[in-house]
Amino acid sequence: MYRLDEIAERFGFELQGDPALVVAGLCGLSDDLPGHLSFVGAPKHAAAAQRSNIPAFVTRAELPIEGKVCLFHPHPEYAIALVGQLFERSKLTQVARIHASADIHPSAELAPDVVIGANVVIGQDTRIGPRTRIMPGSVVMDRVQIGADCLVYPNAVVREDSVLGDRVLVQPGAIIGGDGYGFVQYEGRHVKIPQLGRVVLEDDVEIGANTTVDRGRFTETRIGRGTKIDNLVMLAHNVRLGENCLICAQSGISGSTRLGDRVTFAGQVGVAGHIDICSDVTVLGKSSVTKGVRTPGVYAGIPFRPVERWRKAVARFYRDIDHERDKD
Amino acid sequence: MYRLDEIAERFGFELQGDPALVVAGLCGLSDDLPGHLSFVGAPKHAAAAQRSNIPAFVTRAELPIEGKVCLFHPHPEYAIALVGQLFERSKLTQVARIHASADIHPSAELAPDVVIGANVVIGQDTRIGPRTRIMPGSVVMDRVQIGADCLVYPNAVVREDSVLGDRVLVQPGAIIGGDGYGFVQYEGRHVKIPQLGRVVLEDDVEIGANTTVDRGRFTETRIGRGTKIDNLVMLAHNVRLGENCLICAQSGISGSTRLGDRVTFAGQVGVAGHIDICSDVTVLGKSSVTKGVRTPGVYAGIPFRPVERWRKAVARFYRDIDHERDKD
Amino acid sequence: MYRLDEIAERFGFELQGDPALVVAGLCGLSDDLPGHLSFVGAPKHAAAAQRSNIPAFVTRAELPIEGKVCLFHPHPEYAIALVGQLFERSKLTQVARIHASADIHPSAELAPDVVIGANVVIGQDTRIGPRTRIMPGSVVMDRVQIGADCLVYPNAVVREDSVLGDRVLVQPGAIIGGDGYGFVQYEGRHVKIPQLGRVVLEDDVEIGANTTVDRGRFTETRIGRGTKIDNLVMLAHNVRLGENCLICAQSGISGSTRLGDRVTFAGQVGVAGHIDICSDVTVLGKSSVTKGVRTPGVYAGIPFRPVERWRKAVARFYRDIDHERDKD
Repeated sequence: MYRLDEIAERFGFELQGDPALVVAGLCGLSDDLPGHLSFVGAPKHAAAAQRSNIPAFVTRAELPIEGKVCLFHPHPEYAIALVGQLFERSKLTQVARIHASADIHPSAELAPDVVIGANVVIGQDTRIGPRTRIMPGSVVMDRVQIGADCLVYPNAVVREDSVLGDRVLVQPGAIIGGDGYGFVQYEGRHVKIPQLGRVVLEDDVEIGANTTVDRGRFTETRIGRGTKIDNLVMLAHNVRLGENCLICAQSGISGSTRLGDRVTFAGQVGVAGHIDICSDVTVLGKSSVTKGVRTPGVYAGIPFRPVERWRKAVARFYRDIDHERDKD
Repeated sequence: MYRLDEIAERFGFELQGDPALVVAGLCGLSDDLPGHLSFVGAPKHAAAAQRSNIPAFVTRAELPIEGKVCLFHPHPEYAIALVGQLFERSKLTQVARIHASADIHPSAELAPDVVIGANVVIGQDTRIGPRTRIMPGSVVMDRVQIGADCLVYPNAVVREDSVLGDRVLVQPGAIIGGDGYGFVQYEGRHVKIPQLGRVVLEDDVEIGANTTVDRGRFTETRIGRGTKIDNLVMLAHNVRLGENCLICAQSGISGSTRLGDRVTFAGQVGVAGHIDICSDVTVLGKSSVTKGVRTPGVYAGIPFRPVERWRKAVARFYRDIDHERDKD
Repeated sequence: MYRLDEIAERFGFELQGDPALVVAGLCGLSDDLPGHLSFVGAPKHAAAAQRSNIPAFVTRAELPIEGKVCLFHPHPEYAIALVGQLFERSKLTQVARIHASADIHPSAELAPDVVIGANVVIGQDTRIGPRTRIMPGSVVMDRVQIGADCLVYPNAVVREDSVLGDRVLVQPGAIIGGDGYGFVQYEGRHVKIPQLGRVVLEDDVEIGANTTVDRGRFTETRIGRGTKIDNLVMLAHNVRLGENCLICAQSGISGSTRLGDRVTFAGQVGVAGHIDICSDVTVLGKSSVTKGVRTPGVYAGIPFRPVERWRKAVARFYRDIDHERDKD
């Protein structure tokens, strides 16, 4: 529970209306909850905001919501993300600093203020930076380096030799550094190629729940700074992602493929191996990227094309057939 | 090992043939195992049943299998599901009522006859209902509410604030309440929007192995009573599923999408965010649902259409090409 | 660090050049690392190898790389897989033979030289063969049989009654033997059919990270000898895979489908239930296999066809549309 003037002061927002109003949490406009704070990002939502039961909004100074308490910020959605930090409740508070049941190798180095949960395993020569929290049931194997202010949720696995930068967030059940899928056919059998490399997650990377990032075959798999990976994504060995990419759920990137910066994949995208995708590419959901991409833009389809070409092809695919429906 | 007259008596089936016959387990018709009990649901399978090595069948009274011991029930597949409960063997029997290695916060409330396995972690202010079993290695975080007669298999994670009704079944490795995938772009970076909401799984929900259900952004993600989710499914933040839906493996539903009741998705379906799908919709495997659906029926395709229209479009897509094959 | 003459002697390679050269590890040709050993499989890569900074190569006797130390073997990629074993570093070395925190049922039988990590749970009547290693946090339930020389990575789950042969490799987070997805509709509800069967993984099977293999409904799900499964794959109940198959990431095979030997699926393939796919079939990525396959060959598409037919159909799908681009 926070008074709006507390919030305004803490984040430097200008306040208009009753400063003593108390809010219990945040909500979206469509949630329409009394006693909560919401936000308005675009003029088209102002009327709905005004009609709603929500008593207070973060909005832009040029878009005050009549009859509501307003907190002003030039980028309301960013502002609400900041305010949200106030309402994050403590997680698994029974975790002691270093839980008695954790199994920590004597050679491991834990920086000050590290939190290690119940049943966590920390391997030989592993180093964990200040204020990083490893939650219950997670296993961090040998020679791993984890930076400062990371948070590894329960039952994740970080296999040997992985490197995590600062402020890396690993959701529950994610697997960092599993073996790459590499075999050589020899006398009718698939002989495993030992996967000797590692995974590097640069600063501010987030890895979704039950996502898997395979270690490099001989060298490394690397995810660039600020890139966010959703749940159940597969990143194969030797993949390299640039900075500030967004890879949505259930997408998969085959081995040795490289992405530039600010590449966005919607859900269930599949990408072939050994190709390069340049910066500033967006691929729509369920597309199949079968070749390298040298031109920034939006792509879609199976196999993929620039989105306008995919849309034309789909229109022809359903032509007359869609028309029949209209006659129904 | 059960005598057929025991089975008949326990479930109220009428028996025809040798009541002293003993069966060691259940099998499908194609498994063709001597000493087992099977079932026949449709007249077309009666001849195969008669020829098989299987000595006994659950069947409808009007469809007796000649030469076999028969147990009669109007719905044989339902009847065999009941009988199957007899053959479920104890699971991880070494689990004590409350295993000594479990880490249970003193504020947690465990109802009578709760079973907590080895290395389970139970968070602060969490409440667990009667006869619920949490199997080894699972982590249930703070302020979680779990109802009666639930079963959480090993190495699952139930994150803070989740609510599970009665008789909820969570398969191994499932993640309930991971952060939703929500960022706001600000000065070229993706700033995380704190995911403050929760997950609600209503009564009789089943969650498959390694499936992920993300918590609501500000409010909740909710799965309606009796809905069954298969393995490796992704349900994003703020998704709402109605009652008695079936979501098959590797399907993904994007954020804030709502499904009605009795919606069925075959495997690998992808659904866009912020759309509504009405009750009694079926979507065939690998389809891409890009828009809301207001009319019950069967849909398929990428992008999806009513199934007959998709089939026509596919026929045209392969026309002449398929014909060439026929000339081969 | 190994001298090349040590490597040559250990694996019986012929050596040409400085026998005292020391290499620190392996690398791919494109990694171009000084002080490492690489390999050349095809004449087209010889020039790049010669120009590279890599000092030593495994290559065929008829393809020596000028100016480099060469180790000769008729199948260089196989040879490098062998050499790779030298460079595999110890994993989670703090694991004692049987870690004190492991919870092992007194009836379980552990063969000599078994390694059991921290917080591992081993169920009743489970048997584990010689030299098998179960890494931290994994749960092996009741009546499981695991053969010799297996390796189960952290936080995997092997549910009751599963059978693993020799040299089976289970990557982290994999779930073996979760319930199949089987329900019977009765009075408007989905009634669970108890999943009474088991999973059998034959010798030399590998299961990828966070992959799920469901137990048989009444009988078994079986993966044939030498078959390798990638990450996040779903194998439904009663599926049977033959020997030496390769199933790439995020593919899914529906219930009761059978594959022959040497079947290869690229990533994100979906396969319908209750169909048979013969030996020596390859399916390209993201395809949808909707019917049985009786003819060996390469298939692709949604829905799938022999690959040349799919390619023709795609060419027509984009015809003129792709042409327009060419005019740009």
